[in-house]
Amino acid sequence: MYSFKNDYSEGAHPRILEALIKTNMEQTAGYGLDEYSESAIELIKKKIKRNDAEVHLLVGGTQTNLIAMAAFLRSHEAVISAETGHVLVHETGAIEATGHKVISVPSKDGKLKPENIAKVVEQHTDEHMVKPKLVYISNPTEIGTIYKKEELKQLSEVCKEKDLILYVDGARLGSALCSFENDLDISDLARLTDAFYIGGTKGGALMGEALVICKDSLKKEFRFHVKQRGGMFAKGRILGMQFLELFKDDLYFELANHANKMADILREGIKTAGFEFMIEASTNQVFPIFPNDLIEKLQENYDFLLWEKIDVEKSAVRLVTSWATDEDEVQKFVNQLLNEVQNN
Amino acid sequence: MYSFKNDYSEGAHPRILEALIKTNMEQTAGYGLDEYSESAIELIKKKIKRNDAEVHLLVGGTQTNLIAMAAFLRSHEAVISAETGHVLVHETGAIEATGHKVISVPSKDGKLKPENIAKVVEQHTDEHMVKPKLVYISNPTEIGTIYKKEELKQLSEVCKEKDLILYVDGARLGSALCSFENDLDISDLARLTDAFYIGGTKGGALMGEALVICKDSLKKEFRFHVKQRGGMFAKGRILGMQFLELFKDDLYFELANHANKMADILREGIKTAGFEFMIEASTNQVFPIFPNDLIEKLQENYDFLLWEKIDVEKSAVRLVTSWATDEDEVQKFVNQLLNEVQNN
Amino acid sequence: MYSFKNDYSEGAHPRILEALIKTNMEQTAGYGLDEYSESAIELIKKKIKRNDAEVHLLVGGTQTNLIAMAAFLRSHEAVISAETGHVLVHETGAIEATGHKVISVPSKDGKLKPENIAKVVEQHTDEHMVKPKLVYISNPTEIGTIYKKEELKQLSEVCKEKDLILYVDGARLGSALCSFENDLDISDLARLTDAFYIGGTKGGALMGEALVICKDSLKKEFRFHVKQRGGMFAKGRILGMQFLELFKDDLYFELANHANKMADILREGIKTAGFEFMIEASTNQVFPIFPNDLIEKLQENYDFLLWEKIDVEKSAVRLVTSWATDEDEVQKFVNQLLNEVQNN
Amino acid sequence: MYSFKNDYSEGAHPRILEALIKTNMEQTAGYGLDEYSESAIELIKKKIKRNDAEVHLLVGGTQTNLIAMAAFLRSHEAVISAETGHVLVHETGAIEATGHKVISVPSKDGKLKPENIAKVVEQHTDEHMVKPKLVYISNPTEIGTIYKKEELKQLSEVCKEKDLILYVDGARLGSALCSFENDLDISDLARLTDAFYIGGTKGGALMGEALVICKDSLKKEFRFHVKQRGGMFAKGRILGMQFLELFKDDLYFELANHANKMADILREGIKTAGFEFMIEASTNQVFPIFPNDLIEKLQENYDFLLWEKIDVEKSAVRLVTSWATDEDEVQKFVNQLLNEVQNN
Repeated sequence: MYSFKNDYSEGAHPRILEALIKTNMEQTAGYGLDEYSESAIELIKKKIKRNDAEVHLLVGGTQTNLIAMAAFLRSHEAVISAETGHVLVHETGAIEATGHKVISVPSKDGKLKPENIAKVVEQHTDEHMVKPKLVYISNPTEIGTIYKKEELKQLSEVCKEKDLILYVDGARLGSALCSFENDLDISDLARLTDAFYIGGTKGGALMGEALVICKDSLKKEFRFHVKQRGGMFAKGRILGMQFLELFKDDLYFELANHANKMADILREGIKTAGFEFMIEASTNQVFPIFPNDLIEKLQENYDFLLWEKIDVEKSAVRLVTSWATDEDEVQKFVNQLLNEVQNN
Repeated sequence: MYSFKNDYSEGAHPRILEALIKTNMEQTAGYGLDEYSESAIELIKKKIKRNDAEVHLLVGGTQTNLIAMAAFLRSHEAVISAETGHVLVHETGAIEATGHKVISVPSKDGKLKPENIAKVVEQHTDEHMVKPKLVYISNPTEIGTIYKKEELKQLSEVCKEKDLILYVDGARLGSALCSFENDLDISDLARLTDAFYIGGTKGGALMGEALVICKDSLKKEFRFHVKQRGGMFAKGRILGMQFLELFKDDLYFELANHANKMADILREGIKTAGFEFMIEASTNQVFPIFPNDLIEKLQENYDFLLWEKIDVEKSAVRLVTSWATDEDEVQKFVNQLLNEVQNN
Repeated sequence: MYSFKNDYSEGAHPRILEALIKTNMEQTAGYGLDEYSESAIELIKKKIKRNDAEVHLLVGGTQTNLIAMAAFLRSHEAVISAETGHVLVHETGAIEATGHKVISVPSKDGKLKPENIAKVVEQHTDEHMVKPKLVYISNPTEIGTIYKKEELKQLSEVCKEKDLILYVDGARLGSALCSFENDLDISDLARLTDAFYIGGTKGGALMGEALVICKDSLKKEFRFHVKQRGGMFAKGRILGMQFLELFKDDLYFELANHANKMADILREGIKTAGFEFMIEASTNQVFPIFPNDLIEKLQENYDFLLWEKIDVEKSAVRLVTSWATDEDEVQKFVNQLLNEVQNN
Repeated sequence: MYSFKNDYSEGAHPRILEALIKTNMEQTAGYGLDEYSESAIELIKKKIKRNDAEVHLLVGGTQTNLIAMAAFLRSHEAVISAETGHVLVHETGAIEATGHKVISVPSKDGKLKPENIAKVVEQHTDEHMVKPKLVYISNPTEIGTIYKKEELKQLSEVCKEKDLILYVDGARLGSALCSFENDLDISDLARLTDAFYIGGTKGGALMGEALVICKDSLKKEFRFHVKQRGGMFAKGRILGMQFLELFKDDLYFELANHANKMADILREGIKTAGFEFMIEASTNQVFPIFPNDLIEKLQENYDFLLWEKIDVEKSAVRLVTSWATDEDEVQKFVNQLLNEVQNN
């Protein structure tokens, strides 16, 4: 049984484990004040070309989102999210638990458009309603689509105009930036957004997300919020060392490229076999529509998520690849698919 | 420069890193539903002799405390803590940020007594005041003292009588249970308390705390709270594997014994050199009172915390040992101390 | 200029002011523990035929909603509301500020149906999502429609089946129960729901809402929550006296009948004049669709709310009547309408 | 039985009820946007000589405190209060329920001194602890003492120096400003503090507190917080009219003078009868120490609070006077006291 269920089913890239072992008995300062964390942060600031940015290394995505929003917002200020947004649906009300409403915006492709934001702002007219203040987008989105540079630029402009914070959830940011469709550089994110995070957990690390705060006013006393929400990591160097390893020679992007390549092979194979997709995605998630009996047969050898019922006979499934995905297994999957189709 | 500053300055016990490497490319379920986590939890339940307990593996201490209290308490219910309690002082208002008051009780030795609790309950008479509901103690306390079995039994009784939850912060639990003064077995905690956690971060792991919920009514839908507060760890097996390694053959206690032994050598040396202690502790923290000029000399070779000014000439300092403390360095410290004293 | 803008533009029914004056210099216990409040509560329990219910007299609607939900729910539990629900849209995130998500359900007539609730429950499958726990409905709804007995019964059944709390916002409850379409008795609410409130502010009082808690498990230590959220009223007898006056001889329903009668006259006149309605409502809110130029002319003499743009030429407006609405003014409004139409 | 139990046992000053009756059927805008509220606010701004201040009329004291602190503070920022402070002890954790720690400072006379504040700031050194940000004082204090101008000036200076918000709970502000010891003008409060509230509930109104925000940065979008916490009053004019009546010709101070005069008579009589006081207070609360058997005798005719056990034979009690206190009853109380003493 091989799993395409998610991008966190293996441990970490071997180089990361080696780095941990090599430095294991060194004594360092705690809580992210060690030299490894500091070097990783310097490296990230160089990559994103924003020496003035503030970078915080945190353990997980939900944690990063909730700490950021709790720190950035006053209690009457709300988050705008696409209806597919992770903070809206899949974080057990983490943002609401810190006191903030998350406003849902319908979206077919998982993306927010400037007109969506303008409309939400327009509808919230007075103090009887929350005040929309932070725009939450994910790149890639939760269904694998990405923002092009022009789209992000337009969002950035509408946010500046309406005095909104633009925040990007980058749980799979590497995969977005290495997509064949992508025209964004990581430094564009630092230039066009107010804060974003670079996902490590799904990008080759044991765990860890690097939150980048670009806007000055959002930086103030941020570490208090990290501690208050349980995100201050005693052995912070473990996070530092991982990001150091991922960014010192572009390992991060190399691994994302591998994940995307595996997804591309899947997509090609699926197309060749004659199937369609629920959504045209260009990152490490693939959403083919299969007949239900085919799904059952594939499930004998592969683990993956049933995503959505399409009709009585067909369903969309989700296949996820990662830095760890074995190309042989991908080929075997495609071969089984082609065989099944031929035999029918 | 050698550090006695804390018990989280090194990485993890080598066996833990080996286990991570060995299983690195296995595919497992996420979010703590993997076999390693399940085995670790079974092992812990066996150790504590409570097959009916629920165990949750979490990343850090503040996170564990805040998730537990947010899940256990209604918003008008409050926590009782000694004035030295970690949740009261050193977690940046984490408990208050989830909506609960923490009531401070004066304490010289860091411990709560039954009469303290009875008094707090008595003083909170009606709905104009919060309702005390959870008793928070640390074992060992934040200043290194421990609870004897009789003391814990009495606390347990007063809590039952007053319908209070008894919760133990066990960030350094190993050290308490391996103290020369200790008469508690880990199964006594599971028998006498409603919930407690077994600290991994300060006990040889990279990170991780095992929260044990003993009382049935506190278990309900606890994983929702873990997720909501950002504590659901994607690659949960990393926590599982560490606790598995620590508990499969008592490595956890072996490491705590080493830490305590190092502290005992320090204590003996300090006594021999003629110094007194701010508090008589029997675990891996030592609080000697030194003349200020001696402190300056020691600081040339050692890193440790200035704890409290005693008078114009003397201060209490904190020395912490751990599973990783080097016995040679401990001896060298004691030797320097004896030399300095002799030369004066 | 006469106002049909809302049902809280005048003070209180004269009998209420008289009662306040008559008892003004009596000394009573504070915080709702006075005899007037106690008598009012007894009276309400008799009316609703639930001697076991608990009644709390509170100042306003948002306050009542937020205290109830904060007291009833654990932090991972969420509220289900129609997209028009007051708690969802018009309370500035009051529920979220106490830590709970409010899940929005599309609804054309402002009402929730059993199938809406079943679907929400079905979609929330695990601990990565909030747990739906309280169904919030308003009767009448925010757009003036009402629940029939059969509808409420079905909601009650689905809530029992799914272990959900059924809560009714009765800001305008009198108007619902006196609607020509209504077949509910106030005791049906006490029988079919877990909690509901009887609105005083919009029903003839200076202010005040009577929250009725029917379900035993929701009553526990409720007054702590009232105090904690700032809802404990020092001179509680002022609330008590008002509800006593409103319920001792059905003044409450008499006033609601007047409000509804005024709305019926408006509806009849509008129909006669040939206009349609945005929604067919049977309570004290009327939502006619008028040409924009007619609206402008009416605005010279009347104050009311522009509700929704229908197309380039027409808009829906909201006319609200109350216990205080002057029948002469209603007739004058209708006459002007008929004249304007005739002259065109 | 006559009650000296509190200052909210009667209704409102007759002039207030008259004003409500006179304007009862006028139609006004809701939510505090009516002309009465606006006039009251203008009047208050004139009285305090701060035309730039922002005034919000709210229903009660706990509500005012919690809305202000929730609006003013970020979640890691804490309140400093004397151990007797109302927010610390008697508001059921209202401030903590909005996410903020309240730090307790020991105080014999209910007052905070500059050195208390400096010490708290000094002890909170880094992001592992909350950040003290708002100094909460009550004038008069909860035990009837008052701040002199020099004391308030010094607090103001230390707050400016340490970047702290100075907030005054004025539930009984009239009584403080009319005390024989007082040298503060109400305009001094507006000059020396960042925010304070003028208590109406205990000063002759049915209910209502006027929150004055002096510091510009604290004003931003405050009404959103009022609404979010359930403090937006539909018929806001009821609050407006009351403050208009209380301030249009110094009725507020006249009523406070009466309350203080009644307390002065009590104090004189108690001294003459040979008793001591738990605390030397100069406002409308009196804390005599009486033998327990005398207390029992007085309780046959008078209602008052047992405050504190002094020793086996004596206890301190609390007698409260108000705008409504009957001078005859005060004289009768003093006479009974003198008689009881003579007869012993």
